[in-house]
Amino acid sequence: MAADGPGVGPGVVVGVDIGGTKVLAGVVGDDGRVSGTARRTTPGRRVVTQRVEDALVEAIVEATAGRPLAGVGVAAAGFVDSGGERVMFAPHLPWQGQPLRELLEDRLGCEVRLDNDANCAARAESRHGAARGATSALMITMGTGIGGAVLVDGHVLRGANGMAGEFGHVQVVPDGQACECGRRGCWEQYSSGNALVREARMLMREQPSVLSEMSGSDHDRITGPMVTAAAEEGDLVARRAYASVGDWLGVGTANLVAALDPEVVVIGGGVSAAGDRLLDPARAALQRTLVGAAHRRVPPLVAAQLGPQAGMIGGALLVSRPGRRPDPAGQARR
Amino acid sequence: MAADGPGVGPGVVVGVDIGGTKVLAGVVGDDGRVSGTARRTTPGRRVVTQRVEDALVEAIVEATAGRPLAGVGVAAAGFVDSGGERVMFAPHLPWQGQPLRELLEDRLGCEVRLDNDANCAARAESRHGAARGATSALMITMGTGIGGAVLVDGHVLRGANGMAGEFGHVQVVPDGQACECGRRGCWEQYSSGNALVREARMLMREQPSVLSEMSGSDHDRITGPMVTAAAEEGDLVARRAYASVGDWLGVGTANLVAALDPEVVVIGGGVSAAGDRLLDPARAALQRTLVGAAHRRVPPLVAAQLGPQAGMIGGALLVSRPGRRPDPAGQARR
Amino acid sequence: MAADGPGVGPGVVVGVDIGGTKVLAGVVGDDGRVSGTARRTTPGRRVVTQRVEDALVEAIVEATAGRPLAGVGVAAAGFVDSGGERVMFAPHLPWQGQPLRELLEDRLGCEVRLDNDANCAARAESRHGAARGATSALMITMGTGIGGAVLVDGHVLRGANGMAGEFGHVQVVPDGQACECGRRGCWEQYSSGNALVREARMLMREQPSVLSEMSGSDHDRITGPMVTAAAEEGDLVARRAYASVGDWLGVGTANLVAALDPEVVVIGGGVSAAGDRLLDPARAALQRTLVGAAHRRVPPLVAAQLGPQAGMIGGALLVSRPGRRPDPAGQARR
Amino acid sequence: MAADGPGVGPGVVVGVDIGGTKVLAGVVGDDGRVSGTARRTTPGRRVVTQRVEDALVEAIVEATAGRPLAGVGVAAAGFVDSGGERVMFAPHLPWQGQPLRELLEDRLGCEVRLDNDANCAARAESRHGAARGATSALMITMGTGIGGAVLVDGHVLRGANGMAGEFGHVQVVPDGQACECGRRGCWEQYSSGNALVREARMLMREQPSVLSEMSGSDHDRITGPMVTAAAEEGDLVARRAYASVGDWLGVGTANLVAALDPEVVVIGGGVSAAGDRLLDPARAALQRTLVGAAHRRVPPLVAAQLGPQAGMIGGALLVSRPGRRPDPAGQARR
Repeated sequence: MAADGPGVGPGVVVGVDIGGTKVLAGVVGDDGRVSGTARRTTPGRRVVTQRVEDALVEAIVEATAGRPLAGVGVAAAGFVDSGGERVMFAPHLPWQGQPLRELLEDRLGCEVRLDNDANCAARAESRHGAARGATSALMITMGTGIGGAVLVDGHVLRGANGMAGEFGHVQVVPDGQACECGRRGCWEQYSSGNALVREARMLMREQPSVLSEMSGSDHDRITGPMVTAAAEEGDLVARRAYASVGDWLGVGTANLVAALDPEVVVIGGGVSAAGDRLLDPARAALQRTLVGAAHRRVPPLVAAQLGPQAGMIGGALLVSRPGRRPDPAGQARR
Repeated sequence: MAADGPGVGPGVVVGVDIGGTKVLAGVVGDDGRVSGTARRTTPGRRVVTQRVEDALVEAIVEATAGRPLAGVGVAAAGFVDSGGERVMFAPHLPWQGQPLRELLEDRLGCEVRLDNDANCAARAESRHGAARGATSALMITMGTGIGGAVLVDGHVLRGANGMAGEFGHVQVVPDGQACECGRRGCWEQYSSGNALVREARMLMREQPSVLSEMSGSDHDRITGPMVTAAAEEGDLVARRAYASVGDWLGVGTANLVAALDPEVVVIGGGVSAAGDRLLDPARAALQRTLVGAAHRRVPPLVAAQLGPQAGMIGGALLVSRPGRRPDPAGQARR
Repeated sequence: MAADGPGVGPGVVVGVDIGGTKVLAGVVGDDGRVSGTARRTTPGRRVVTQRVEDALVEAIVEATAGRPLAGVGVAAAGFVDSGGERVMFAPHLPWQGQPLRELLEDRLGCEVRLDNDANCAARAESRHGAARGATSALMITMGTGIGGAVLVDGHVLRGANGMAGEFGHVQVVPDGQACECGRRGCWEQYSSGNALVREARMLMREQPSVLSEMSGSDHDRITGPMVTAAAEEGDLVARRAYASVGDWLGVGTANLVAALDPEVVVIGGGVSAAGDRLLDPARAALQRTLVGAAHRRVPPLVAAQLGPQAGMIGGALLVSRPGRRPDPAGQARR
Repeated sequence: MAADGPGVGPGVVVGVDIGGTKVLAGVVGDDGRVSGTARRTTPGRRVVTQRVEDALVEAIVEATAGRPLAGVGVAAAGFVDSGGERVMFAPHLPWQGQPLRELLEDRLGCEVRLDNDANCAARAESRHGAARGATSALMITMGTGIGGAVLVDGHVLRGANGMAGEFGHVQVVPDGQACECGRRGCWEQYSSGNALVREARMLMREQPSVLSEMSGSDHDRITGPMVTAAAEEGDLVARRAYASVGDWLGVGTANLVAALDPEVVVIGGGVSAAGDRLLDPARAALQRTLVGAAHRRVPPLVAAQLGPQAGMIGGALLVSRPGRRPDPAGQARR
């Protein structure tokens, strides 16, 4: 797993995924296999930034289990500048433009690279997962909201502001549902974990559901996992909520496919764990909505394969490694 | 203008733009300057394909004015396969998959390259026009409908089916205006030359307009140029029609910018000749609709600079040329 | 059938329906039964008004078969002033405000009453048809477009301008399909005979249909009756077109029911001949879209019963008749 | 003020308005003037119904100031059955179908009548306020949500379920903003007190506003009165919020006017206190959206005149009174 050579010294490459609740670090091999993981709780947003950096360093060091460190790639749940130096803003992390990459290099004594988590997950799926072998791909990440990444010629498109892939705020309904971003009709208001829960709550007004029991009749306490569990039990409200969210997933995807014509569309993020319950209605809507669907190869819409480790694995891919061909997915396009 | 070396022999490079009504050929220099143009009328869609090829060859030969031919790049108003070999379908041209590139190489005895006209125009604007110096750009072409191209890292994105850049059929209004493509709410139903005319006709029902006089009170005879002329005269109906089409231009552009984060957005095509009358409302709508507009660099939305020659100039850029650095814009990304 | 008494002399009451293509007159009994009908072709819109009046008088006289005339009620396919004196405007008739009621009284020597055809049809269905026994009803007439009438306390609501019941131009989709009226998203653009044909044409782009054969592959020649025939043969395109138009019928009806809470909704006009093929999806959409549907009596959505004679029968109901109780449906509310 | 005769004995007529927070009773004269008012706090929703009835009786008795009671009319903020006997459901009151009218008659020993508050307010505006002299009117009540009433021939339309006038849940945007009622795109999600606050919160994300200071930077604490105060100070966010809510008020009104063609549209409820700040954009949108606006008398859109006393005054109008002409506005149509 270790490698010699210029650029990256001998030793292991560690990928780290830092989200709003936890830090996950792991040694990632050339084949994408993960060994020696370590976890920390994210200290929060209102702490001094050093506390979060401490947690990162601790998790990284623990993951190495004493092996020398060749390089570290960090996948952060926030907005990373186009140069890959800083987290400019993140809803659940304290950084606001501090030179994080440099700070970590100083503390760790090895190469450090930084990108946002959706881009890293896309790199991981591109090299080791559902988009393996594809030159171009769309990665759509459904969690609380929608994130994503565009793969072109094997590279992640970062954009002039480092903001490419902000699919969640594409407008799909003029005058539609109000969004936290201050506009109306954003895609993630119709297709996301939050949308799934809202839809279920709305449907419960007209139809009985086991979600009433699950939530102790307090609809505000309904969560995404409850809707998933209810759908698995055959609950009609939960199934209709998934059908709606899946349909809108396909409608929004069709717009991106019309513009970008990718080989494959990969759906990741927590909601994608629902699999075909989410993807089947999305496929139907993609077929129905995509221009010229009858006269083109409609890209397959597939589930991500790497699950919650995708960010960490993709983080590690940011680190260039000697002894293997230059990794196109480790670089970025603007 | 001529060049020696491998790949392309000594001689001139000709770009050809073949549209539904005319064939335009010209010798294009390394600096993008055009000399020795020639025109033919497009023979139509229901003729044998050879007649159109004859027109192409005649225009090309006339444009060279006897100089040796180093290479030819063809920009076609139709759907070109991802390999750049064939016009698969075009609304106003007879080809349906014949190996056009090879046929022309046989007849002309030099390298021939082929792509669709929007992609070629984007290459031209990227190298010699409004997107010069930008690594990434969106090109949006407003004619009868909307076409476009995505420039990433200096290359045109062609897509897995050769269909990237089909922006006109992105859905902007669910259940919206019926489109010739068989779906509803496509962007080009709200922002295009056709949309401009429809909007003017609708507004004339409630408000007097010089368009009544211009069209001899037959609203079916109103054309885009009439609306432009009326707007220049200060006609309120025409100005409101431009404001509407411009607003929707900005709304649709915001969605593409959210997904791709380009450095610049170039608006070309016949309708773009209206300049700020079209672009000012588009800029306002882009600023209003783009996610995080207050916290990012919103890309400038600018008019194309090369006008009707853009396709021809960009066609010539398809031809690799010795003695200059490899032209990234002459290659394509998938 | 004849009756003596003040107000209306002894003799028969004739109802006349004057549409864009034909004049239909008939003697209508107290029980709504029609005898002695007569027809004329409508002379057109660009003739002198007297020619149309001649046709009316001829049809009326023929229908009486020599019996004395007690009164005449005219149902006109146009906009009738709130006083019931004049046809102010009609797309296929020449009148523009001439005192039609008075002119006909002079020529016929008996009481003449006048209202628009949708209001007359509503009166007929209220007294003798599908809304019999209901105190309040909505009548929705689906022909080329959508017309309608509101029955309140047994009376037709005429409105301050005589324009109540103009349901066709209620906006159901902001920024939706352009309408001939100069606005967007009018209900009749989604649910009407024209909408049915447009929908079928759109669906034919993605799916084979017997409509291609029926229309000689010229989609512009597809008509409503063709779609009906195709649907009866099991054609999927035609059935989907009916499902779409029916769904929007229910959505728009739900809005009117929310505002007016009628006892029953009657669907008339040519398209309603499709019966449950149209009404079943409308019922489902009404149930889905109507506020509080689970907690109220959702009004039955039923087909009109009097067919093409409804206007003529309702015209006759305009004439007050001795020897029977004052007919509330013969009067109008504002 | 007192009157003799059958039906209502000598004495005063009291109108009572019972809302979610307070009970307001007052002696109402034939001319609509109010004297001797009394107030109580509404005991809440989770109390025994008798406690609310006690509050009603106390307020009524106090209002009479010892004068004999001829009759009482109750305007209730809830859903009243079509017979006017019961409050079937109310979001802030405990009744669920108890025979309220009869219970109060037993306790008060005089005639009692009952209707919902929007209908009562419409009666009051019809007889003594902004719709005086009009035969037909639309009353639209903007509070937290939207309520309303339809006046036809001087009578309030109650509907088959007693639910006529539920304008708030007419769908104006398919797939629009989620509504508490379980559907999407309801009018009151775009035009109401709640909509005003939501709109202001959304606009504050892109633009500075004095509302930040007013709310201590906690956007969840922004209230309607704050937005009103800010608009009066010239705050742009607040003014834009009013413009948006007013525009949607006009759009929804246009749909009702197309269907009902009333003589006048009266806007009441708490938000209407903003006057022309709300009504001017509504008038513009009504003119723009109403079918045939150029060819008809567009009904004036005016502010209600009776303010918070409208419900109480209209409640009193439910009581028929000897010695005056039968009050059409005191009766209801279905």
